[in-house]
Amino acid sequence: MSFAVVVLAAGKGTRMKSALPKVLHPLLGRPLVEYAARAAQQAGAERVVVVVGHGAEAVRDVLEPLGVRTALQAEQLGTAHALASAQGALSDWEGPVVVTMGDAPLISAGTLAGLAQAVPTGGGMAMLTFEPDDPARYGRVIRDAAGRVDRVVEYKDATPEERAVREVNAGVYAFDAHVWDYLNEIGRDNAAGEYYLPDLIGVYQKHGLEVRAFKASDPTELLAVNDRAQLAAVERVLLERLRTHWMREGVRMVMPETIYLEPTVELAPDVTLEPGVMLKGATRVGEGASVGAFSIVSDSELAPGAEVRPHSVLEGARLAAGAVAGPFARLRPGAVLEANAFVGNFVEVKKSRLGPGVKAGHLAYLGDAEVGAGTNVGAGTITANYDGVKKHPTIIGPRAFIGSNSVLIAPVRIGAEATVAAGSAINQDVPAGALGIARARQRNLEGWAERKARASNSQKDGTRMEGETT
Amino acid sequence: MSFAVVVLAAGKGTRMKSALPKVLHPLLGRPLVEYAARAAQQAGAERVVVVVGHGAEAVRDVLEPLGVRTALQAEQLGTAHALASAQGALSDWEGPVVVTMGDAPLISAGTLAGLAQAVPTGGGMAMLTFEPDDPARYGRVIRDAAGRVDRVVEYKDATPEERAVREVNAGVYAFDAHVWDYLNEIGRDNAAGEYYLPDLIGVYQKHGLEVRAFKASDPTELLAVNDRAQLAAVERVLLERLRTHWMREGVRMVMPETIYLEPTVELAPDVTLEPGVMLKGATRVGEGASVGAFSIVSDSELAPGAEVRPHSVLEGARLAAGAVAGPFARLRPGAVLEANAFVGNFVEVKKSRLGPGVKAGHLAYLGDAEVGAGTNVGAGTITANYDGVKKHPTIIGPRAFIGSNSVLIAPVRIGAEATVAAGSAINQDVPAGALGIARARQRNLEGWAERKARASNSQKDGTRMEGETT
Amino acid sequence: MSFAVVVLAAGKGTRMKSALPKVLHPLLGRPLVEYAARAAQQAGAERVVVVVGHGAEAVRDVLEPLGVRTALQAEQLGTAHALASAQGALSDWEGPVVVTMGDAPLISAGTLAGLAQAVPTGGGMAMLTFEPDDPARYGRVIRDAAGRVDRVVEYKDATPEERAVREVNAGVYAFDAHVWDYLNEIGRDNAAGEYYLPDLIGVYQKHGLEVRAFKASDPTELLAVNDRAQLAAVERVLLERLRTHWMREGVRMVMPETIYLEPTVELAPDVTLEPGVMLKGATRVGEGASVGAFSIVSDSELAPGAEVRPHSVLEGARLAAGAVAGPFARLRPGAVLEANAFVGNFVEVKKSRLGPGVKAGHLAYLGDAEVGAGTNVGAGTITANYDGVKKHPTIIGPRAFIGSNSVLIAPVRIGAEATVAAGSAINQDVPAGALGIARARQRNLEGWAERKARASNSQKDGTRMEGETT
Repeated sequence: MSFAVVVLAAGKGTRMKSALPKVLHPLLGRPLVEYAARAAQQAGAERVVVVVGHGAEAVRDVLEPLGVRTALQAEQLGTAHALASAQGALSDWEGPVVVTMGDAPLISAGTLAGLAQAVPTGGGMAMLTFEPDDPARYGRVIRDAAGRVDRVVEYKDATPEERAVREVNAGVYAFDAHVWDYLNEIGRDNAAGEYYLPDLIGVYQKHGLEVRAFKASDPTELLAVNDRAQLAAVERVLLERLRTHWMREGVRMVMPETIYLEPTVELAPDVTLEPGVMLKGATRVGEGASVGAFSIVSDSELAPGAEVRPHSVLEGARLAAGAVAGPFARLRPGAVLEANAFVGNFVEVKKSRLGPGVKAGHLAYLGDAEVGAGTNVGAGTITANYDGVKKHPTIIGPRAFIGSNSVLIAPVRIGAEATVAAGSAINQDVPAGALGIARARQRNLEGWAERKARASNSQKDGTRMEGETT
Repeated sequence: MSFAVVVLAAGKGTRMKSALPKVLHPLLGRPLVEYAARAAQQAGAERVVVVVGHGAEAVRDVLEPLGVRTALQAEQLGTAHALASAQGALSDWEGPVVVTMGDAPLISAGTLAGLAQAVPTGGGMAMLTFEPDDPARYGRVIRDAAGRVDRVVEYKDATPEERAVREVNAGVYAFDAHVWDYLNEIGRDNAAGEYYLPDLIGVYQKHGLEVRAFKASDPTELLAVNDRAQLAAVERVLLERLRTHWMREGVRMVMPETIYLEPTVELAPDVTLEPGVMLKGATRVGEGASVGAFSIVSDSELAPGAEVRPHSVLEGARLAAGAVAGPFARLRPGAVLEANAFVGNFVEVKKSRLGPGVKAGHLAYLGDAEVGAGTNVGAGTITANYDGVKKHPTIIGPRAFIGSNSVLIAPVRIGAEATVAAGSAINQDVPAGALGIARARQRNLEGWAERKARASNSQKDGTRMEGETT
Repeated sequence: MSFAVVVLAAGKGTRMKSALPKVLHPLLGRPLVEYAARAAQQAGAERVVVVVGHGAEAVRDVLEPLGVRTALQAEQLGTAHALASAQGALSDWEGPVVVTMGDAPLISAGTLAGLAQAVPTGGGMAMLTFEPDDPARYGRVIRDAAGRVDRVVEYKDATPEERAVREVNAGVYAFDAHVWDYLNEIGRDNAAGEYYLPDLIGVYQKHGLEVRAFKASDPTELLAVNDRAQLAAVERVLLERLRTHWMREGVRMVMPETIYLEPTVELAPDVTLEPGVMLKGATRVGEGASVGAFSIVSDSELAPGAEVRPHSVLEGARLAAGAVAGPFARLRPGAVLEANAFVGNFVEVKKSRLGPGVKAGHLAYLGDAEVGAGTNVGAGTITANYDGVKKHPTIIGPRAFIGSNSVLIAPVRIGAEATVAAGSAINQDVPAGALGIARARQRNLEGWAERKARASNSQKDGTRMEGETT
């Protein structure tokens, strides 16, 4: 059956206390409104219209890539007014229209499709209901003897018998194609002076049309986001679903309740995720790969058997099979570790390719570099890739040996099997097999400690000793 | 209505298994006893007396800055004896006296004030009661037909009907001003040979005075701390309150259950806190600023729009608008990042001011330094600010360029727009606009790899190659 | 009473979706199967036989150090068949035989011992039962008027009255010594064509022998692991037990729900563990020592009063009293910090001994080094301990001063009270009290900024300035 979905997303969300429109608040890496829009698409809606208002431009920018239409509600005059704003986008539409909320991200595709199918074929409407653990503040759904909706009673107007009813109104509806006419019959004779969507129930009944209730099986689907605490509650539900899903698919999670995952992430069996791990964006982790505690991996690819050790931050990086990074590794966009390459603690790699078996184990910066297979990059090595104006590449051949505490001043080439002496500042190419050395010869000045003791104040001269502070 | 509060805080807390007196154990950055003392002050108590005993000196030191009085209970002979110890500090006091526990940090100001007001004006006492989820081990409060307290029955002495009562004694009381006389009527004819505060109930009744019950609305207020697990339970309640409070004020928290916050911290709307963030002490975070995952920020100030990236540790630091630190930044006391300054990974800043737009992106140590606007501090730069005896400043002008892997041996000045060549050890001032260079010229020794292969053991000479280990 | 225990551990664990046999999955640092085997040993079992099948070799390797026997179930033909596989290993055994599951790691020694004692002395069997919160899918245990087991009814076959029974079959049994004979009476006339252990109930009854029920007091003991989510649930129970145990022993935990502990770890009173701490393996932490947030400590020893600051990773390290590491310290195997030694941020120590009071505060690598008491190791110091072929030691005497950004090219000795000038590459020994210096003299080239501005493209020459990138 074909149906349209209207997502109401024009509200400001005052209780969010934010400069950002409510429906743009991020939830596991996606704006809130995307959840309802994607659920509508997955439900099989032929057309999805999002009614925008506050921050309309920004909301449209987010929705455009999804291929949904938007309609502007310039003034916010109530939910029925919001639906009326979508009429133009649906003027040629003749099937049922489901109306859902942009701030209710957990409503599933199945629920929306089921609700659409509940619209009586001869005309009428359906309303989504649910049974929350605590129904206190919701409007009670009073059914007649035949199980049809008789009326919805607001809590404040309900009798004790009515309050005992646990089925409540979710505020999500499906209407037949004549809804646009009925909308005109709604008034704004209430305290807020707004047009309310639930008033359509009475209008449909006045016309002798049936109002059906469609009960959601999982009440958590109806969690709506009105403030940050509710957003966190929804996030908790989504995270719990993602964690359980991946564990059932064979992912090992240690202390899963501390692990953050976005819905865009893909994991393979026998992946291990340790406590505090965060996986974001288009990250893919292959079979048997592992991510150590407190590591944050965004938009990166870990081949089967790759290993990210604890306390590492990866963004736009690629690790081949057997590659190892961390602990305390920082891999930035364009960092590529080929098979069995190793990047150790306090090492940053940016836009650089480390060939198979390369080792850069300690305190190094590799930027705009190519490092050939099997090369050893000593502790404290720095590629000086920036001259204050532009960036330059550093090309290191295979099986080279870069001595500790060296600086390679780009553009520069170190040949295959070349050696750079420790402590060198290299600004010329080193040929293959050669030793490049650029450091001063050592002198020892005997009796320095005594002299220092005699001169209680240190003086400024070429041999002044110095260190550093606590 | 004016009242005094006595906080009983003399106990050792044997079950804490600690060298520290129980009431000094830290709870979100404050000693336990401070919570009861502050609640008493916030309740409007005209006088607050804390009865100290175990670790009396240390407890007094903590309380002195709060402006509360202390009274010494030299021996611990029971709760009634503890109250008697406060008589001297209240000898001139003629109003009601509330008695609360130093190990019950969640009792609110409102509850203490309400209890004080519940003391019958014609003389008598009030007792705090509550209805815990599981009342098992508490003494049941048996009321008479008029709702007044008839008696408190210990669980072991209670009939099945009495055990069915859910209202229990919290051990917190408010007495009229004659309590000191009544205390003398209490005996110690019990197993422990101690003077018990609940015995005052019978004494008041014997004198024909009313004992009122004042029921706490929130039973969690009565959580007491007897061991570390209970301290953790109280901490959980307080953290949950703080998180919810700030989320309602517009703070975005990702996985809030992993976030640690102290009550002294102040946050603005649209602040983002990622998982694992810890905010301590006098930390203030301005609108739109963010703190990345697992970062720990103490006594620091983040201006609106400042950004602390993941895995950073800040202590006594200040970030101006648009300043960015991290990931893996370490800012120590006196680190100041002016507008749009950037401190990147594996960089430590101590007692240094980085002017607007300064960049120190990688693997650097800046201590006792002033860095002018727009200067670029290369990877691996170190200010050697200590000569083994004292510390010296490094002053770098604006728009300077410090080449990678340089060491600046303080005291030293680098002028405006000056350049330091990569790999230099700078121990003399570099004038404005000049290039300072202090490194050896490079030599290449061809055929080194072959020679090395021939000599299987490396030898010690001036051109020996070297690296570092895995 | 003497008894044997058979642990059934031959299954593949298909729902784990893993290349690893189910019982080898790690749970707090130990393979799953070890828990049941150790519980059997602690229960006092004279003989423990583990029935292995999938991954038999690997499972045997794990169990061998525990001193338990294994028996091979080559084909997996059901639980009764699995027990039959153990007959050979128990052919000379004449006492009761307890049968438990390798995937049920929480069953306690006390429960196993109690079950063994429940076997009727005149012959018969006992079965473990429990009352789960939700008994839905378990077989109900129907007792007769005398409280003996009448039968076990599978849920699908149960009447409404039987379904109302909350006591269910745990699948753990104790049999008399004749069980081997009775096993032969079990058929495989069922859908799966397997031999089922519960069928022994009927066989024993057929022989007129009593079947007793032994009810587990704690239903969580019966949690079994069939998928990763269940493994995580079991882990949560174990972690919660460990945390509560240590808190009751006087350990302070901040946000204990975020702390990871293995059962092999030993802690003393007044130890502080901050959020996110992970303690693994043979780690011991002495009285008053502390481990800062997000630090990971494996197989290390912290003496009383030692301090590991946040974001540190220790493996096989030792800290003496008053020693401090971190934040951002990396201590690898063989790192020893003697009394009051300090290792600061972005410092890695491997197989090195730092004497009393040594300070290595920033951005350093110390490998294969001995550092004498009171020596100051400057920021950026690197011991180049690897020449591409083998590793060499660095020996530094007491009260020496290693200037910042130095590289010490091993093998090398720095004498007592010697000084190394900042920025030096030291490849010869420095005598006691001497200054070792190996750096070039500084030159300043005036007007460099102007020249640079004129030449818009930087050129490659010996004085080219360079930096690094964002």
